[in-house]
Formats: sequence, structure tokens, C-alpha cells
Amino acid sequence: MSLIVQKYGGTSVGSPERIKHVARRVARWQRQGHQVVVVVSAMSGETNRLVALAKEIQSQPDPREFDVMLATGEQVTIALLAMALMDMGVSARSYTGGQVRILTDSAYTKARIMRIDEDRIRADLARNQVVIVAGFQGVDEAGNITTLGRGGSDTTGVALAAALKADECQIYTDVDGVYTTDPRIVPEARRLKSITFEEMLEMASLGSKVLQIRSVEFAGKYNVRLRVLSSFEEEGEGTLITFEEDEKMEHASISGIAFNRDEAKITILGVPDRPGIAYQILGPIGDANIDVDMIVQNVGHDGLTDVSFTVHRNDYQKALKILEPIQKHIKAREIVSGDKIAKVSVVGVGMRSHAGIASTMFRTLAEEGINIQMISTSEIKISVVIDEKYLELAVRVLHKAFGLEQPAR
Amino acid sequence: MSLIVQKYGGTSVGSPERIKHVARRVARWQRQGHQVVVVVSAMSGETNRLVALAKEIQSQPDPREFDVMLATGEQVTIALLAMALMDMGVSARSYTGGQVRILTDSAYTKARIMRIDEDRIRADLARNQVVIVAGFQGVDEAGNITTLGRGGSDTTGVALAAALKADECQIYTDVDGVYTTDPRIVPEARRLKSITFEEMLEMASLGSKVLQIRSVEFAGKYNVRLRVLSSFEEEGEGTLITFEEDEKMEHASISGIAFNRDEAKITILGVPDRPGIAYQILGPIGDANIDVDMIVQNVGHDGLTDVSFTVHRNDYQKALKILEPIQKHIKAREIVSGDKIAKVSVVGVGMRSHAGIASTMFRTLAEEGINIQMISTSEIKISVVIDEKYLELAVRVLHKAFGLEQPAR
Repeated sequence: MSLIVQKYGGTSVGSPERIKHVARRVARWQRQGHQVVVVVSAMSGETNRLVALAKEIQSQPDPREFDVMLATGEQVTIALLAMALMDMGVSARSYTGGQVRILTDSAYTKARIMRIDEDRIRADLARNQVVIVAGFQGVDEAGNITTLGRGGSDTTGVALAAALKADECQIYTDVDGVYTTDPRIVPEARRLKSITFEEMLEMASLGSKVLQIRSVEFAGKYNVRLRVLSSFEEEGEGTLITFEEDEKMEHASISGIAFNRDEAKITILGVPDRPGIAYQILGPIGDANIDVDMIVQNVGHDGLTDVSFTVHRNDYQKALKILEPIQKHIKAREIVSGDKIAKVSVVGVGMRSHAGIASTMFRTLAEEGINIQMISTSEIKISVVIDEKYLELAVRVLHKAFGLEQPAR
Repeated sequence: MSLIVQKYGGTSVGSPERIKHVARRVARWQRQGHQVVVVVSAMSGETNRLVALAKEIQSQPDPREFDVMLATGEQVTIALLAMALMDMGVSARSYTGGQVRILTDSAYTKARIMRIDEDRIRADLARNQVVIVAGFQGVDEAGNITTLGRGGSDTTGVALAAALKADECQIYTDVDGVYTTDPRIVPEARRLKSITFEEMLEMASLGSKVLQIRSVEFAGKYNVRLRVLSSFEEEGEGTLITFEEDEKMEHASISGIAFNRDEAKITILGVPDRPGIAYQILGPIGDANIDVDMIVQNVGHDGLTDVSFTVHRNDYQKALKILEPIQKHIKAREIVSGDKIAKVSVVGVGMRSHAGIASTMFRTLAEEGINIQMISTSEIKISVVIDEKYLELAVRVLHKAFGLEQPAR
């Protein structure tokens, strides 16, 4: 017998039929002798409906009240799922975040989980009950309702798995696992049986948006065994996210090709090459709450250097406006920029011990006449910025060059 | 400065525009220097939506989970009203039933309020904040979410007014007060400036459904000054529900004509007239959760009597089915019944000291050729059952016979 935490997202519980489907799956696990804790999101569309309602009242909804309202979405789903389970003869009990006391800080709309009182859940499990917990929400010390922000339900699932020392945290979603790349671009893309935690972080942040980064980080920190599965397919073991070294042994050099076309690049040319200059440029960008992804600065010469970085396209114009006075102030020569770019990355812990990954990547792109505009590397990934129009081509040829269509693990 | 509790029902908060309208009214009271606590219902339509959703999952929804789900309706409204107030510069704070700890028993879907911790509300009021509380809901000792059943939001309002010793509890609804009768039937019907608590109980239960009986009883028990007002009109002082004797002094004999066409009558003829026979007939009806309204049994003769009673039309067939074997068992002669009936009542504390009310009523009906099928009286009302087709006529002639179109109080 093992203790399993399962998390189902908004699409998986998007209608009464889908909720019944989830109930049947949960019931199956429970009948096999497992203890099951289920975390659910709001039914798909519900959060958008509530947000629209709030904005009709207040263009910038008060964060405390916004959370009071948003938290109702998951509260409806937990009750419905409990009913569906009881309707098929399975004993079940629902809890809001506040009721199992998912204690958070008071940062409304983006609260952090601080502690979970697991006693109540353990008592229910011991009585052979399925416990259903509202994702995305908690309460602060004063009893105010809080929400966890984007991907909050995944975080709730992982946090509960950590608190309960669950054997596995299963994230059910509309894909059946993590793929070597997007199958819409490369039909030969393969589902990975496992992927390391670090690779998952790189894959997720680079555009294979299966899991929210925050929940993966959380799982890594508390050593929660995390598995991504499809809620729409009956069979399939999904993709296991691994943390232990020995599980990585047989890995190929590269796990997958990630990509992203949401970014824009900005380059400041002829920047005086002196200490603190990067901060002078990027500090105000950060102060404006603009996330910067890649940052590239090469060795300068003649006392001048060039600094390039990428931001989300939504922040592109805002970033340019912030930079104009800075360029004048630091006496840089010129700003050049563009948003018709794409980022392509090869990701894999195997590249730590396999030489030649970078050269294979660059050669492959060169053979197709694809110009590389920026390069950035980490221990387990190499990212390049290219012209957006070559994105699909680049992903396809790299997937083939690294033999990702072959079953490797 | 006084402390006012205001309660707004589902229609009054049925859209973002209506919520803003309520916010403006609340803000006006607050700017006049009053402390204001607001109780709100779910937006109209929302509860029905949730009930339909639950029934798609479970035909008889589990009561605990049903309450978890239903409670979200009011939770959305409190947040929206708080936002609307803040948007017009009024400091406000929302609370669910559980957050201000409206402590109830554990009778899901029809819980009773046991205690309210008013400290938190008092602290907010002292800081000049409008406090908004979700109606209809509470928590039990174990922290489970409960709801109060029909009219629960009125009850929340009255209970809060009692706990806070508020100067007045204002119930805003879609009518502007209590009328001498339904103005759709008698255009001359007048709004009453005041009505006694007992009259209100009779008027409400007899069909003038302005306030839920339970909240009126509650107000009487805790001596809460209750006022019914329209949320759609800017002016108007509504109808005050009074409890003290001296406020009744100038009352006319009759306050109003109430009526009800939701009932059916059942008569058992030739019942052996022996002790316990009424219980043998009505016990099984009560056991089947069928509410009985009027019960009439006249003096028997030749060892036989007739027993008549009325039930809601929805329960009519069910009640007949229950009675058939009983009739055989007690050897009663026959059951006669009909659902084409209506009940008309004259209500007024004044009839305690004014003679001739009954005779005026019976004469007036007789003059129109309206046959009286059953009569039942209490200290402050006389009810008759008549053929349904005469209902409007009976109400009109009685309203005139008692001079109710004349301003009297």
C-alpha cells in the first residue's frame, strides 16, 4: 500500500462528465489498496469568468478580495468530486485550503506555502477515505484567504506530497508526459520515461509547459517523486521526474529540444566597459518587473562592449522605453532590437559527460544556413537565438541530429 | 452614530451594476456617520447554477459537500461588494461565515446559528471599515462549512444584528415594504409603516413572502429592530417590524389580507371518534416530512367525526397515498380531497380587542356568494379555505370591507 497524491488541472475537471471520469480513476487507485489524496483546480473557464466579473467592478481588483473570490473556483470542484466519488460508493471528504490549514504568508495572489497541518488528512486516510483538497489556495496566520498564483494547484499537490511523505505525486494534465520536443513540429518526438529534475526545469522554462517551474523546484527541494500523466488516457505511465543520480545512469547525452517564440531581443552597442555597467542597464528593467531571460555580454575591446538580453514580447516596448534614457546616460552608442526571434535549446544532463554537443548543434544549424544571433549555455543546456522563421526547421534537424527519435531510455 | 446591519438579497446583487448600486447606498449610510455591517446573498441565478451542477453529479447531493459548494455563491458576492466599495474610496473588508466564525450546529443544508464571534467585526468597525459578511453560511465546531437553508441570509443579518446589538437590521429586497395585501390583486393596497412581529409571522407564512419566518422569529427572540426596504428605490422608509406593546397602540383592527394558493385539502369522513385518532392520521404524514398547515376537526356525533387538513400541493398525491391504508385500518368511511382551493386570511393584532372581525369576514364573503369550506382561527388571524376561482374576488372585497385602503398608521 502506498500513499499517492494526484493533482488534476482545470481541463481534467472541466465538466460533470470529466469530473466523473476523474472519480473513476481515483476510485481505481483506491480499490487497488492505495491511500489517495486528490488536489483539484477550478473547472476550466471558471477562473476567467470570475476574473472578468471582478474587473467589471474594479479595474485593478483589491488583492485580498480577489483571492476571496478566486478561491471559490476550486471550492466548487472539490465538492463535486467528493459527490462523484460518493455516488460510486467511495468514501470521500473535501477540504478547502483553509480547512486543512495550508498556511501561507499574506502575499495575496502569489502567496507561499509555509506549513500544512497533515493530521486531519492522515486521520481521514486511516478511515479509508479519499481526501480531496482545493488547489491554489491557503490561509494566512490571521485566517485571510490567499491564493498561490499561476500553477498554484501543482504547488499544492507537491506541498501535500511533501508534508505527507507520499510515495508519489502524480500530476494529471492534458499531455501524457514530457516529450523530446513538440510533436506538432516533429512527429517522431518520443515521450521520455523519465527526465531529471534539472532537465525538467530547463524544458519547462524553455517552452515545454507541462509543469509549473515552481512546483518542480518545490518537488526537488523536498525530494518528492513527481510523475506527469494524461488524465485523458486510461493507460500509460507518463514521465517520471527523477532526482537521484543512479536513475540518470543510462541517459543519452540529450533529453530534448525545447523552444520558445515569446521573446524579443535587445542589444546595446558600444557600452563603456566598466564595473557596474550591467547593473545600470538591467537594474531599471528588473525594477519595472520585467523578467529578463538570456543575457549575453562578450569580452570588450577598445573600452567598449555590447550587452544583449531577451525579454518577453509583451514587455518589449516597455523595456525599450526604459532603456532610451539609460543609453544616453551611460553614453552607449546605439540600441538595436527585434522581436522576430526564437530561442532553441538542447537540454540534457548527459552533456556534462559527453563532449561535442555544442559543435554538433552549431554544425547542424550551419548546414541548414541558419544564422545564430546569440548563444548562452548552462551545464545542461545550450540555447541559441535565431530568426523566428527558421524555428521549426531548427527543431526538426536538431531532433534528428541527436537521435532523439530512437528509444533510448 | 448608530450601528446598522443591512442585508441585500440575490436580486439586489444580481449583476455588477446592481452591486455598484448597493455599494453607493452603503457608502451613503457610512458617510452619514453610521457603522455599517452588510450581509449579502449569492447573485441571483448563481445558487440555481450550482444546484444544477451538483445534481448532474449526484442526484441526491451529499449534504456536507453540497454546503461546501453552495457557500461559494455568497463568497463571490462579498468580494465583489468589497471591491465596489473600495473603488469608490470606502474602506471595506469581506468575511465568509467561517471567517467571522458564525458557529452553527452540524445540520448541513439547514444549520442553526449557535454563536457569533463579533470581536473581529467590532475591531474593523472601529477602524471605520464597512464589514461585509457572507449570508446563509457558517462553520460547525470541527470547521466544516454549513449552510442555513432557505432564507438563511436574512437569518445571518438578524443574528449579526443581535450579536452586535445593532440599532437596526435593514432587509433590502425587491419590494419596498409589507403591504395590506398583494397590489397585483388590489391596486389600492397600502404599504404599512409598521407591523407587529406576530402579524408579520402570520403574513409571511400566509403568502406575503417578504421575509423568511425564521429570521422574524429570531428577531423577536433577540429583540432586533427589523425593517424591510426596497433596494431598488432611493427613498422610502419601508416597513418597520415592531415588538413593543406601545408601538401597537394606534393599530387598526386588521393589518392585511394574506392568501395562499399552494395548498390542497384532504378530508377523512366518518372517523371513529376516539382518543389518539388524530395522531393515527397525522403522525404518518409528519413522518413522511409533509408539512400540514390548517387542521380542522369538528365536534363528533354518533361516535364519528370528520378530520380535514391542508398540505402543500406538491405533497398532495404523496399524502393521499399514505392515507389510503390508514383509512382502511381505522375503518373511516371515505377520503374526499381537492387541490383547487385557496386560503385567505385576515391578519391583525387589533382583532384581540375588536369584536366582530369574523362576522364581517363571513358576511362579506357570503354577499359575494363565496362558499367557505374550512375555517381556522388564531388570536390574530382568521383563515378560510375557499374555491380557488374566487381568490382574487375574496381578497378584493375583504380589503375593502376592512377599510385597508385608508391610511391608518
